[in-house]
Amino acid sequence: MIKAGIVGATGYTGSELLRLLALHPDVEVSVVTSRSEAGKAVADRFPHLRAYNDLNFTDPSVDTLAQCDVVFFATPHGVAQAMMPEFIDSGLKVIDLSADFRLKNADLWASWYNQPHGCPELIEQAVYGLPEVNREAIKAASLIACPGCYPTAIQLGFLPLLENKLVDTGRLIADAKSGASGAGRGANVGTLLAECADSFKAYGASGHRHSPEIRQGLNSFSGEDVALTFVPHLLPMIRGIEATLYAELTTELSLENIQAIYEKRYENEPFVDVMPLGSHPETRSVKGSNYCRIALHKQADSNTIIVLSVIDNLVKGASGQAVQNMNLMFGLEEHAGINQVPLMP
Amino acid sequence: MIKAGIVGATGYTGSELLRLLALHPDVEVSVVTSRSEAGKAVADRFPHLRAYNDLNFTDPSVDTLAQCDVVFFATPHGVAQAMMPEFIDSGLKVIDLSADFRLKNADLWASWYNQPHGCPELIEQAVYGLPEVNREAIKAASLIACPGCYPTAIQLGFLPLLENKLVDTGRLIADAKSGASGAGRGANVGTLLAECADSFKAYGASGHRHSPEIRQGLNSFSGEDVALTFVPHLLPMIRGIEATLYAELTTELSLENIQAIYEKRYENEPFVDVMPLGSHPETRSVKGSNYCRIALHKQADSNTIIVLSVIDNLVKGASGQAVQNMNLMFGLEEHAGINQVPLMP
Amino acid sequence: MIKAGIVGATGYTGSELLRLLALHPDVEVSVVTSRSEAGKAVADRFPHLRAYNDLNFTDPSVDTLAQCDVVFFATPHGVAQAMMPEFIDSGLKVIDLSADFRLKNADLWASWYNQPHGCPELIEQAVYGLPEVNREAIKAASLIACPGCYPTAIQLGFLPLLENKLVDTGRLIADAKSGASGAGRGANVGTLLAECADSFKAYGASGHRHSPEIRQGLNSFSGEDVALTFVPHLLPMIRGIEATLYAELTTELSLENIQAIYEKRYENEPFVDVMPLGSHPETRSVKGSNYCRIALHKQADSNTIIVLSVIDNLVKGASGQAVQNMNLMFGLEEHAGINQVPLMP
Amino acid sequence: MIKAGIVGATGYTGSELLRLLALHPDVEVSVVTSRSEAGKAVADRFPHLRAYNDLNFTDPSVDTLAQCDVVFFATPHGVAQAMMPEFIDSGLKVIDLSADFRLKNADLWASWYNQPHGCPELIEQAVYGLPEVNREAIKAASLIACPGCYPTAIQLGFLPLLENKLVDTGRLIADAKSGASGAGRGANVGTLLAECADSFKAYGASGHRHSPEIRQGLNSFSGEDVALTFVPHLLPMIRGIEATLYAELTTELSLENIQAIYEKRYENEPFVDVMPLGSHPETRSVKGSNYCRIALHKQADSNTIIVLSVIDNLVKGASGQAVQNMNLMFGLEEHAGINQVPLMP
Repeated sequence: MIKAGIVGATGYTGSELLRLLALHPDVEVSVVTSRSEAGKAVADRFPHLRAYNDLNFTDPSVDTLAQCDVVFFATPHGVAQAMMPEFIDSGLKVIDLSADFRLKNADLWASWYNQPHGCPELIEQAVYGLPEVNREAIKAASLIACPGCYPTAIQLGFLPLLENKLVDTGRLIADAKSGASGAGRGANVGTLLAECADSFKAYGASGHRHSPEIRQGLNSFSGEDVALTFVPHLLPMIRGIEATLYAELTTELSLENIQAIYEKRYENEPFVDVMPLGSHPETRSVKGSNYCRIALHKQADSNTIIVLSVIDNLVKGASGQAVQNMNLMFGLEEHAGINQVPLMP
Repeated sequence: MIKAGIVGATGYTGSELLRLLALHPDVEVSVVTSRSEAGKAVADRFPHLRAYNDLNFTDPSVDTLAQCDVVFFATPHGVAQAMMPEFIDSGLKVIDLSADFRLKNADLWASWYNQPHGCPELIEQAVYGLPEVNREAIKAASLIACPGCYPTAIQLGFLPLLENKLVDTGRLIADAKSGASGAGRGANVGTLLAECADSFKAYGASGHRHSPEIRQGLNSFSGEDVALTFVPHLLPMIRGIEATLYAELTTELSLENIQAIYEKRYENEPFVDVMPLGSHPETRSVKGSNYCRIALHKQADSNTIIVLSVIDNLVKGASGQAVQNMNLMFGLEEHAGINQVPLMP
Repeated sequence: MIKAGIVGATGYTGSELLRLLALHPDVEVSVVTSRSEAGKAVADRFPHLRAYNDLNFTDPSVDTLAQCDVVFFATPHGVAQAMMPEFIDSGLKVIDLSADFRLKNADLWASWYNQPHGCPELIEQAVYGLPEVNREAIKAASLIACPGCYPTAIQLGFLPLLENKLVDTGRLIADAKSGASGAGRGANVGTLLAECADSFKAYGASGHRHSPEIRQGLNSFSGEDVALTFVPHLLPMIRGIEATLYAELTTELSLENIQAIYEKRYENEPFVDVMPLGSHPETRSVKGSNYCRIALHKQADSNTIIVLSVIDNLVKGASGQAVQNMNLMFGLEEHAGINQVPLMP
Repeated sequence: MIKAGIVGATGYTGSELLRLLALHPDVEVSVVTSRSEAGKAVADRFPHLRAYNDLNFTDPSVDTLAQCDVVFFATPHGVAQAMMPEFIDSGLKVIDLSADFRLKNADLWASWYNQPHGCPELIEQAVYGLPEVNREAIKAASLIACPGCYPTAIQLGFLPLLENKLVDTGRLIADAKSGASGAGRGANVGTLLAECADSFKAYGASGHRHSPEIRQGLNSFSGEDVALTFVPHLLPMIRGIEATLYAELTTELSLENIQAIYEKRYENEPFVDVMPLGSHPETRSVKGSNYCRIALHKQADSNTIIVLSVIDNLVKGASGQAVQNMNLMFGLEEHAGINQVPLMP
């Protein structure tokens, strides 16, 4: 059994890792750290894990974690950067779910996170963990920068358009909506049920931290600098991201042809589902699962292609994708532990 | 007291009219019709109206309704067209909340509603009831075509940009989201709580009936044919519409200048609130009220202006706007009966 | 115009007072205090109040507040006790929405709130602000202890049974459920949307602070010490309390007779609605309004009477009831400012 | 592989069976029937099952279904009664999730369902599928009457109290709350999101069809006729039942002793979790899983024991329990296919 450690397991991505790994056939979680909860039983904090987890939280320590084969960081930004050199030196494989190693440009990172990058020397080595793009590199990696939730839904939606140079990259629009679990498990007035249930709003409309990560990916797909307008919104629900993407077609290809390109691009991808023309993917159709579902639309007399893309922000947008990366790194079945039927209704 | 009749009062726009008119100082509801509920007490069907309404539903009849000063149609499309000639002939003022008289082109109407227009001779006479655009015409009108919910939020959001020719009209995008009450009160699997709570999706992405109404309005503001991509989405909540609008600026004006144009355009509008730069209007900030709140954004290194517009789909998007129209038609205070503080939380 | 001050207006009961008083015909809010928000505009913190409130929050000071005619405390427990003597000495009328003066026994208060009572000398003078029981005393009072939300729903539900000695007081059961706004607006992990939406649970099942207040009331109605089991639950919604009450009948009276007793008891109460037999009151039927709706049931071959009682926890359970008390204290129309039709849907 | 058929698979219990059986190691679903959807692909109706199910719905026919090893009825009441004799004659094992064979008294059934029982001759043979009570009988059964959702939560909660004669059976109270999926997937105004979200109410308070089933179970546990008041409520959420149970203790045993009795009673039960004293089980802690979690409480100076019991109404309250029964009937691992970690948040 592969031994896994989880740093910062009291948040949603940490608990979701615990849920997915609980039944993973090849992995056992052996260390779960939390400064604030050290000494307490995981199952007391997370009653849904009763019968599945008998560990106690411990303080994060390199020595303890070094006994693992793989360590997941489910921490706020900045934490992984500080501990990473020791971990990498000790030969551990590390999968970082935070934003710490996603951007290839340390200065850009610093400008969005208002602090210097704490470990620029490992940025180059970090592999961006989007299997649909970097599967081979992931297999060989020691350090994975797991993509953000919005970036996953948006990149997978735009990918075939950009790789095939089908659209004007000068004005891409991503109107994205996320459930409240995306804001994390911190005590916060803005995400109280009484504040955000039965309501809806945009946020970060003048600029959001996920923008540079998304643009970095889109640039690499298209081979040029794209212009992207990205507006996130807060949904009155728990899990799920929907991204509605707009781009101007520069091709004569019909929608059916573009549909075929999408189907071809993703035909061997176990977790990307290109739905039939006319479909409108619901976030609940991926709830609790690692799927990304995509559908294409075009309106009469219009040159604008519309891509609808949905994921579960905590699974394909975080912990499920992290497990998918781990499976690739260790040569396991890619769907091991994440072969879960979405929960409907 | 002005006597009001409501045709088809068992749906949400009908019951919302009853709520708003219950405390209107100058109006009393004297006839409430419903074929399916004729003979039953309104307050039995709508317990929230106990103590505010002691009427029974009656069958719709021109004779009974002709005793009113004003009649509201809160019916599915097609119903108002059939009854309208008699009503207009009898000198009644009519406010139609359905889609029957919104489009000026009867053939266009027929193509979107899959049936011939039942009363094309009255289309020209019908005034489109958006007070921010047609206030004077509304005051003199006998027949008001009350705007749809999406069209209200989107038109008010785009209006100053188009009137002032600040944007490229060749690629307008409206990504709009509505609460489930927008789908009406009919028994329908798709809007069951267990089907659409805790989930989110786009619908009608290849073309939606509200598109021609919106385009008709945007065309009139800009004086030319606009190209609009409109994608509606279903929110897991009851009331509220948010529209996030995207347009390419063709002006050198700064965001602050554009903000000033918006503030100027709406400074005398009692129900349009241009929020300060940096704001993100929430749908709950207008819940139960007749307000439309608007905020502007622009991202770094981008030429795309982002307009955020929120309304309560049942008030400014339907019944509140209908009352606003009635107030104008009868020379009452424009905010009479609709001066309601939004319900928060 | 009566001048009102609100101490601690950043929470839900405070903002609800602002909503209700904004359109009160005889009252203007002239002072709004908040230590944390002093200097900021009320309408910036509460965008739904834009156009209805142009005040800034100020630091709470007796001098400033003493210029008011009435002061509302919308503060956590303990705050009102500390400031109360000075306020009462200066001749102000005070309405305290917190728990500070509800219990007549200072020791009992101290044992449930884990601190000594800070102002025992004013307890006797404080009038418990349940108009259906204490209307005349309220009219003459200087200091009102406004009832809690659960206590309001439960007391109004049990009142006619106990006053008329129709049930065994040795085993009363109140199974009560509250929306999340009842937990207040503080940052708290437990009431995050992602924690309590789409879920339901009991809490405080071994004993809850509202128990002694409820028992104190029930004792006074029945003239003897009742035994009450009270279990609160957290609903995945914003506003509303439903209490399902169970008691063993000790009378031969039929359900119809008991219904008649309820109707008689409340026939002159403007805000208590005894619904027809067979009804099941919904919390939404009172949303945003000051009503309490009550319905009675009894099952075949059973001696247990079931009382269903619903209120809006922020209105009849807090701020609406506070305004009702104020109206009585100042000789205004009892429904002034709180004659609001519930918001449905 | 065991071949399973599902009759009436377009509702929630049917689709939940499809979800659970999709990954069952020993079972494959080979026939899925629906009169209304015959000929259509299951995955078109249920996009969450894309990649997990390539069947088409077929018309229900005994011949087709007779090729299965086990048939599940996920139908409205009455359907299973009509088809059952042929199925049993042909040697099939049948698990009926409807109410058709739960009551041992055909007349009682007829009086609650307003129609004669269609197959009284098989009632005696039917085994009530509550494994915690009838495990051995289930193993040998051909026909299982799978318990209802409320009855499961309530019976498991009361069971140790009644078996051990610890309470007065003359006044048991079950205040139960269910998510909207419990009302099924039929088009119905009352369970529209806009009707039941952000609201809460009791229903069936004068008598509900699940009462006789619950009483039948409680009678058998206690060996005498119990008196039960059962009030169901509708929660504004999708999945989950919580039952708060009240009973008068007739024993001197301490709460700790009673806790020990519960722990002992359920120590070998794979799907019943007696939580530590002081716990308040949340419905989300069992979401998507087959667990029932139970906690006990008692308030100061009170003789009333409070039992909190939660299940997922579609899993332990329906389809998961059906699979548990099937596993027992076929000698499989009892948790096969239903060893799912609850989905949190």
